[in-house]
Amino acid sequence: MYTTMSNNTNKLSLEPYKGVRDFYPEDMRVLNYIFSVWSKTLESYGYEEYNASILEPSELYEAKSGEEIVSEQTYSFIDRGERRVTLRPEMTPTVARMVAGRRRELPFPLRLYSIPSLFRYDRPQTGRLREHFQLNADIFGLTNSHAEIELISIASEIMKNFGITEENFEIKISSRKLINAVMSDWYELDAEGSRKLQKLIDRKNKMSSEEFTTKAREITDDAFEFLSLRHTSEGYEEAMALPSIRDAKAELDEVIKTLHKRGITNVVFDDELIRGFDYYTGIIFEVFDKHKDNNRALFGGGRYDELLSLFGEDNVPACGFGMGDVTIMEALKAYDLLPKELSFSTTDIAILCIDEESIEYAERVAAELRAEGSNVIVNTTFKKVGDQIKHAEKLGIPQVIVIGENEVKTESYLVKDL
Amino acid sequence: MYTTMSNNTNKLSLEPYKGVRDFYPEDMRVLNYIFSVWSKTLESYGYEEYNASILEPSELYEAKSGEEIVSEQTYSFIDRGERRVTLRPEMTPTVARMVAGRRRELPFPLRLYSIPSLFRYDRPQTGRLREHFQLNADIFGLTNSHAEIELISIASEIMKNFGITEENFEIKISSRKLINAVMSDWYELDAEGSRKLQKLIDRKNKMSSEEFTTKAREITDDAFEFLSLRHTSEGYEEAMALPSIRDAKAELDEVIKTLHKRGITNVVFDDELIRGFDYYTGIIFEVFDKHKDNNRALFGGGRYDELLSLFGEDNVPACGFGMGDVTIMEALKAYDLLPKELSFSTTDIAILCIDEESIEYAERVAAELRAEGSNVIVNTTFKKVGDQIKHAEKLGIPQVIVIGENEVKTESYLVKDL
Repeated sequence: MYTTMSNNTNKLSLEPYKGVRDFYPEDMRVLNYIFSVWSKTLESYGYEEYNASILEPSELYEAKSGEEIVSEQTYSFIDRGERRVTLRPEMTPTVARMVAGRRRELPFPLRLYSIPSLFRYDRPQTGRLREHFQLNADIFGLTNSHAEIELISIASEIMKNFGITEENFEIKISSRKLINAVMSDWYELDAEGSRKLQKLIDRKNKMSSEEFTTKAREITDDAFEFLSLRHTSEGYEEAMALPSIRDAKAELDEVIKTLHKRGITNVVFDDELIRGFDYYTGIIFEVFDKHKDNNRALFGGGRYDELLSLFGEDNVPACGFGMGDVTIMEALKAYDLLPKELSFSTTDIAILCIDEESIEYAERVAAELRAEGSNVIVNTTFKKVGDQIKHAEKLGIPQVIVIGENEVKTESYLVKDL
Repeated sequence: MYTTMSNNTNKLSLEPYKGVRDFYPEDMRVLNYIFSVWSKTLESYGYEEYNASILEPSELYEAKSGEEIVSEQTYSFIDRGERRVTLRPEMTPTVARMVAGRRRELPFPLRLYSIPSLFRYDRPQTGRLREHFQLNADIFGLTNSHAEIELISIASEIMKNFGITEENFEIKISSRKLINAVMSDWYELDAEGSRKLQKLIDRKNKMSSEEFTTKAREITDDAFEFLSLRHTSEGYEEAMALPSIRDAKAELDEVIKTLHKRGITNVVFDDELIRGFDYYTGIIFEVFDKHKDNNRALFGGGRYDELLSLFGEDNVPACGFGMGDVTIMEALKAYDLLPKELSFSTTDIAILCIDEESIEYAERVAAELRAEGSNVIVNTTFKKVGDQIKHAEKLGIPQVIVIGENEVKTESYLVKDL
């Protein structure tokens, strides 16, 4: 595809495509560290890794949101077989498709995780990334709330495994079942009114309280503080007399109580938590960073019991969360929690050859060290030892072995720390 | 983006996009095994991992091959910022771009590897995969042939680390420098004639020897066996009297001799080895499977000293190889070399709970076992023990612990092998 003919005059650009990242070794070590904390934590809870192509039929995303929205917010195109293709913007539809596709053979409950890259098509001027990696963890086929308890425990453990202590983050929790019950049985709203009010609550902290109240009153006449279902609130006892609200609140309280009992004490009910995706049906949660410079939602998830019914009659209940690499990387930088060893190379030792005559012995030493589990380069540039040491230092290699005439003769060598 | 409103009548397809693969846990374990052999071998030789987005500006591939070829063979489209974007069909242009972009800061020689996914746009009817993973290993900034010797040693070691013994594969080696010298100084062909004859030799085993000879004579009148530069061949001494041919052959012989001396005895000169990419400038090689049912090239590489000059004045010499996951997977299946443990789950133990009262103790046991490094699921379905055991077996989990009233009371448990 490429040639190196000499009549090239237009130099090629050195930049990656707009909005995506190059990962040089020092960036890759950070990324691999994040991936390894994710994988180890998930696998310790018995989650198995899966993956799929980033290419998906566009229909997978258009099922309910319409062609226009998909083509505006995603990378979508038409292939030569007249198929509409999308670079996946999220992983949940893919894993739902895969699980639904084998729902008769797969052993449920099924615990799955993946670290896919995801794409979104932002307008060029926003400066946001167009590709990022996201851990996805899901349990399929478990109806009781031990699914939510386990996933929130894992979310908390991931934070702790990154070194972020419980005082520094908060797990906000709510329930779509509860919200929906309040909407229909307390405010007596229809589906459309309920959707509108939820969207408004979701954007509440982006407007003044006056603006919020005005807009809310356009949807419902009820005047008290919206969704304030804390024990101390006005109207609490009255709302709790309604069975749908009482049952949903009881389930939520039980989850919080169990998590507190297991030592996860930073879980708090947040009656204004909504979360974006429409597919949630039960408990929802969000991990919130309390750092003063990074005060924001890091990631979240919830139960989506009806999504798999889009693929056929046999429904499979489901619950999961997603966690992006960019957000967690920023948090780790804010807390200065990236391990110091990430600044070193994955290579342990550089063997420096004085001349051509040193190489065969140097290669033997390298082979022995590799057999013992060390990562070893052999420098065959035959530059001055000083230059070869500088090269090893620049690469971040912590140890060197110099092989010259003497080492070859005596078949022995010294390991020097840099 | 997704909703679960109940008026859904058109069921979504369960199939992935045409020509790409879903990786369920059992597939992912095989893929991860291949990736881990690749990574461990490369890192043991001091190669550091890098990565980049699958999205690249189309210009990166069009530089020398023209817009038409790129848009016919790749996934290419135009984004809303009027940029032409391509899903990368190979990794070499990307790593060349990245290294050229930092050529003033990076420490050379630089050893890099990556396991990117690559895309090609085959016509739908061919049935070939449109996405695959490929190990890419490269050394930048080393002009002497220790680069080639190291990369061929690594290629050989990867094969052995997969369990494929030296009798079962062959490393075919040649030199573009030698081929070019023969073309220009022996056949006295111009650049165009040289290119044509090389393309013809590359397809030689796809035609009869009569057809080959006829077509070759259309390019040059010379009638003897093409490129037969083995010591026994007619014309050998005469060709070797030409300095360009002699020097290129001497370099090639030295590489082969060194590899033989290091115990890599299955390296053979193949005067008909050409390899597809136009960018090669020196030694080229190909690992060839000798299995009777899988008799074909598995992967290969070579030196491409001029590619980075496309990005600017400061050139960087380079040498590398690529190795696809599909090809090696087929070879491992042909030799029955996939480790048996890949049929087991990455989860070690399933803890089975008899009832709600068992859970808190079960979770404590799970936490202790996880702290000791085990991967543990807690089954909270409260199904019959027999059903929970079947579930663990189906997942491929080798051990179970049953927690009931007695275990809770005595705070003790038994580990059972399945």
